[in-house]
Amino acid sequence: MADPADPNPVSSTPTLPERIDTELAAFLTERTAQLADISPDLGVLSQAFRAAVLNGGKRLRPTFAYWGWRCVRPAGAPGEAELVRAAAGLELLHACALVHDDVMDGSDTRRGQPAAHIRFDRMHREQAWLGNGQSFGAAGAILLGDLLLSWSEELFTAAIGCLPADRARGATAEFDRMRTEVVAGQFLDMLAQARGAFDPDEALRVIEFKTSKYTVQRPLLLGAAAAGGTPELTAVLSDYGLLIGEAFQLRDDLLGVFGDPSRTGKPAGDDLREGKRTLLVALAFQAADPAQRELLRAGVGDPALTGAGVAELRQVLEQTGAHELVEQRILERAGQAARRLEGASLQPVAAQALLELAQAAAHRTS
Amino acid sequence: MADPADPNPVSSTPTLPERIDTELAAFLTERTAQLADISPDLGVLSQAFRAAVLNGGKRLRPTFAYWGWRCVRPAGAPGEAELVRAAAGLELLHACALVHDDVMDGSDTRRGQPAAHIRFDRMHREQAWLGNGQSFGAAGAILLGDLLLSWSEELFTAAIGCLPADRARGATAEFDRMRTEVVAGQFLDMLAQARGAFDPDEALRVIEFKTSKYTVQRPLLLGAAAAGGTPELTAVLSDYGLLIGEAFQLRDDLLGVFGDPSRTGKPAGDDLREGKRTLLVALAFQAADPAQRELLRAGVGDPALTGAGVAELRQVLEQTGAHELVEQRILERAGQAARRLEGASLQPVAAQALLELAQAAAHRTS
Repeated sequence: MADPADPNPVSSTPTLPERIDTELAAFLTERTAQLADISPDLGVLSQAFRAAVLNGGKRLRPTFAYWGWRCVRPAGAPGEAELVRAAAGLELLHACALVHDDVMDGSDTRRGQPAAHIRFDRMHREQAWLGNGQSFGAAGAILLGDLLLSWSEELFTAAIGCLPADRARGATAEFDRMRTEVVAGQFLDMLAQARGAFDPDEALRVIEFKTSKYTVQRPLLLGAAAAGGTPELTAVLSDYGLLIGEAFQLRDDLLGVFGDPSRTGKPAGDDLREGKRTLLVALAFQAADPAQRELLRAGVGDPALTGAGVAELRQVLEQTGAHELVEQRILERAGQAARRLEGASLQPVAAQALLELAQAAAHRTS
Repeated sequence: MADPADPNPVSSTPTLPERIDTELAAFLTERTAQLADISPDLGVLSQAFRAAVLNGGKRLRPTFAYWGWRCVRPAGAPGEAELVRAAAGLELLHACALVHDDVMDGSDTRRGQPAAHIRFDRMHREQAWLGNGQSFGAAGAILLGDLLLSWSEELFTAAIGCLPADRARGATAEFDRMRTEVVAGQFLDMLAQARGAFDPDEALRVIEFKTSKYTVQRPLLLGAAAAGGTPELTAVLSDYGLLIGEAFQLRDDLLGVFGDPSRTGKPAGDDLREGKRTLLVALAFQAADPAQRELLRAGVGDPALTGAGVAELRQVLEQTGAHELVEQRILERAGQAARRLEGASLQPVAAQALLELAQAAAHRTS
């Protein structure tokens, strides 16, 4: 509703992230009641759910799903509300991935707030409960993630099922692929980290599945399928998605090492300490001299790496030219993605939005 | 196919668990190919999937789903093959629950075989990979469980979608409830264990959600809904399911303390060491004298509990009459379940099977 005191009534039109958050809040209310019917003791699970989902996230996957839809359909077309609700389901899937990821990586914070397993761990300590708080925290977060994963499908399926059957089927096929590909990408990432190789091809394959397909390509194709997009549009969005997804992840990798922690919300150098096998470190290793290789081998994956150690590795990433190569590759991919949209048959406002998203993916600072 | 040398050709008709295993093996083959297309490195994930799913499990949930269906439809009726395939999806859901449960409980074995997280941990050690094998094992098992959870829904939905829409919808609603209730039940179990109370009502609530609904009631209702069962049948199966589920879990609790490890496949006393808040220990605590209460407080949940300590607790469970009370309650519930079937309008062969399942739940030794 417009606020009569609002000098700029147009500002009260909800943004897409606000629409997604409204859907998520409504779903949360419904599910809080379902859990309360089972037992009042499940209130803590509902609270953890709220913290994991309504966390000011960028809502990237719903955004791409929405613009995939808008490539075909004008604003406010029939079915848009259902598509937005289905897209909110993607955020529950993503919340599962983050909650489980934080357990797997042992990351204590998420967007500057305590991770789910840390919340449960603290609750355990505050109540002076029996057993080990850390195990309790991990178990609570595993169960919370499982619930988010099941519920993401329920929210998605109920909403998408309101669209014509053939379009719903196409969108669901993309949703199913997303769920498999994100797990596959994470597993490959974990393997790469354990093997400790510095292999650019392996790094690119992890990006393809863990980010490009999961974050950009599949959500776009999902939205386009829900809208009844043509095979030609699918081909364009498929290419655009892989290119922008790669640019997005490469920027993320740079921010993880060179970014401002007050903007990124995660401690500088954590990606290095965790031993992430990014393209950045793989390219540095390729170009490194023996002394630099030794620094990379010893430093990447050392959980006790100091601030000085991080600074030293940053220097290697600069001196080998890896930082510059990755910067160039980001711009190249963003440019290729923009050119892929040229001449494609899609709604002009959607083309404009996709161009802006390409710019944002390439140049963001947080 | 009948073996001409088989003196008893009828024995080559596949049993229901065999039919379920055939569906699971076919699904596994299809998904192994999907993972291989992503990367040959995912072969280890497919192997872990195989070990978690094709493990000689009892296939209880599909069995109840099948007999829920057979309450309404004769053997071989149209749609039966699809129902059996959908029921196989319940085993993937259950495999997820077990894989994640073993991580949460730190259980090293499952049916006498290494748990999924132990398999990944060993792989890590054998390959002398970087980082911590235990963390790698837990992360691999969390991802495997996530995949099983998504895939259970895909197998279920594709199969159930072949039935008429209203029946498919009813069955899907039960499937959705199962997924929420099993997580809720596990979370309540974890809370009860952490709080350390010996509360019979709390123990019964955990049984209701973690076992009765998840293992018996919902699968039965799912099968009946898929077959287009009447509200009267739903009411009968709903009651029968809660009663038999309780009998099944109480027998499980007794086997966990008094069972023969060579038959149950889990070390004697592990439930006591883990500190499970079963009805058995709650009833013992109620009837215990101060010395016995002290033994229960100190011993239940002590991971270092010795064989002698287990024997001492067993004695308390006997002397307080708790063992006997739980035995009686099992027989009572099985009897009530059998009586609930009397006079109900369902296929006689299904009534007979449900009576036998009631007996098996109450009297099994493994």
